[in-house]
Amino acid sequence: MTVLTKVPEAAQVTKADLEGLSPKEIRSIVREGRWTGGTEGLARGYAQANLIILPQEVALEFLIFCQRNPKPCPIVEVTDPGSPMVTQVANADLRTDLPRYSVYKDGKLIDQPSNIVKYWRDDLVGFLIGCSYSFEEALLGAGIPLRHQEEDKIVSVYTTDVPCVPAGRFAGPMVVSMRPIKNHQLVRAIQVTSRFPATHGAPVHVGDPSLIGVDLNKTDFDTGVFELGEDDVPVFWGCGGTPQAVALASKIDFMITHKVGHLFITDKRSEAIAAL
Amino acid sequence: MTVLTKVPEAAQVTKADLEGLSPKEIRSIVREGRWTGGTEGLARGYAQANLIILPQEVALEFLIFCQRNPKPCPIVEVTDPGSPMVTQVANADLRTDLPRYSVYKDGKLIDQPSNIVKYWRDDLVGFLIGCSYSFEEALLGAGIPLRHQEEDKIVSVYTTDVPCVPAGRFAGPMVVSMRPIKNHQLVRAIQVTSRFPATHGAPVHVGDPSLIGVDLNKTDFDTGVFELGEDDVPVFWGCGGTPQAVALASKIDFMITHKVGHLFITDKRSEAIAAL
Repeated sequence: MTVLTKVPEAAQVTKADLEGLSPKEIRSIVREGRWTGGTEGLARGYAQANLIILPQEVALEFLIFCQRNPKPCPIVEVTDPGSPMVTQVANADLRTDLPRYSVYKDGKLIDQPSNIVKYWRDDLVGFLIGCSYSFEEALLGAGIPLRHQEEDKIVSVYTTDVPCVPAGRFAGPMVVSMRPIKNHQLVRAIQVTSRFPATHGAPVHVGDPSLIGVDLNKTDFDTGVFELGEDDVPVFWGCGGTPQAVALASKIDFMITHKVGHLFITDKRSEAIAAL
Repeated sequence: MTVLTKVPEAAQVTKADLEGLSPKEIRSIVREGRWTGGTEGLARGYAQANLIILPQEVALEFLIFCQRNPKPCPIVEVTDPGSPMVTQVANADLRTDLPRYSVYKDGKLIDQPSNIVKYWRDDLVGFLIGCSYSFEEALLGAGIPLRHQEEDKIVSVYTTDVPCVPAGRFAGPMVVSMRPIKNHQLVRAIQVTSRFPATHGAPVHVGDPSLIGVDLNKTDFDTGVFELGEDDVPVFWGCGGTPQAVALASKIDFMITHKVGHLFITDKRSEAIAAL
């Protein structure tokens, strides 16, 4: 409670106010609508998760899709059908506990609200999917620098020509994130991220981008592009953008996701969900 | 084809006839009804899997249950709803490619046929769940002996007082297998099995059985009991009997499983599905 006194009583808080707060404290402030910004850098050491909410009618197919494509779609938690409550990786309400959402109807973005109370329906199922922030902290901890942080950019994201394993109406190419890694740190980077299968795990590709249909200068999302030095190897990890892109392409009539960068903060330390 | 000439043209084959055959060759013989025995020791090096087939109506809940309890219920593959075809870990037909099945109606065992063609329905979903044979081979490979093999018994299986995380109508205690491990090999045994999350992974408990509600002399299934020497530590792993027990207890009106010991043989080498 002493920590909470740092937070102003008034409406909005700043990112600095949130520093050092626990996931539960941050979610409580988010729930009150007092923080609607991004979550990168908040509650350091705790795993964050991507959110996809879908109608129950397609939930089984979607979960099978994720099971078949664990690198881009590592499932962290699935809510009970009809329930917005997270019970395993936190005690939280998906309708209010993320700072901002994207609501899609018939494949079109119709709203980006700070809560989805009015959009919740009794047939919705929430999927929390691992996010790369966890393994990035582990890379930094192993002394492996992250270029997009150094250059204050968004990590580069590409659509590959590698098809995901389809399941029912869910099909499409794998989306990946790319980080330039110094050649002498490549092996360590693979080892470090292998420990985190719940947050995309080991790389899906190392080296020549053309082998997976990627041109490094052309990101498919409005993300950063990085100059590669002679000793830089491009390393590609499965990206949580994959299930979102696949779900959008499948023309499901209703879907809610987190807004990019506005993730769900879990109560689980990244180290606690590491495979070993 | 030269290998296949070892197999007699006539109806039944013996286990010795199957030695050295590939998973595909064995499944083909099983499909013809020429081998209806157990699968332990067959296609060494390849992962085998437990089978549970459930109506689609409960499939989402069951898959969520497995996601919440990955140690006892590691999902290897889920078939497309309504389809008996395995497409990821083999190209195979779940109706014919296991040597023997158990068919349950209203929670009662009604048949143990060698194929389930006549029981298949358009609303069924097949779940393949990892089996401990894979990590047992890895333990043996690391020089860690397995007492149940030495004594030619079935590994001991216990129902614990540790509740699984429930999902919908699926709830119940975790079922575990126990292997006595020599104290000086305990750390290595944990390391070796940690590499195989798809086949139950690291132990769920080490040491004092009473802490998880187990009396080593009372197995809940008709399995082996082992004398522990002074330097033996009882080590407990999540067991594929868990989802079966939980599904049975949930009073689902229809379920098909493999008959105990008569598993599905995949085309995946155990080492190929290891986490690292």
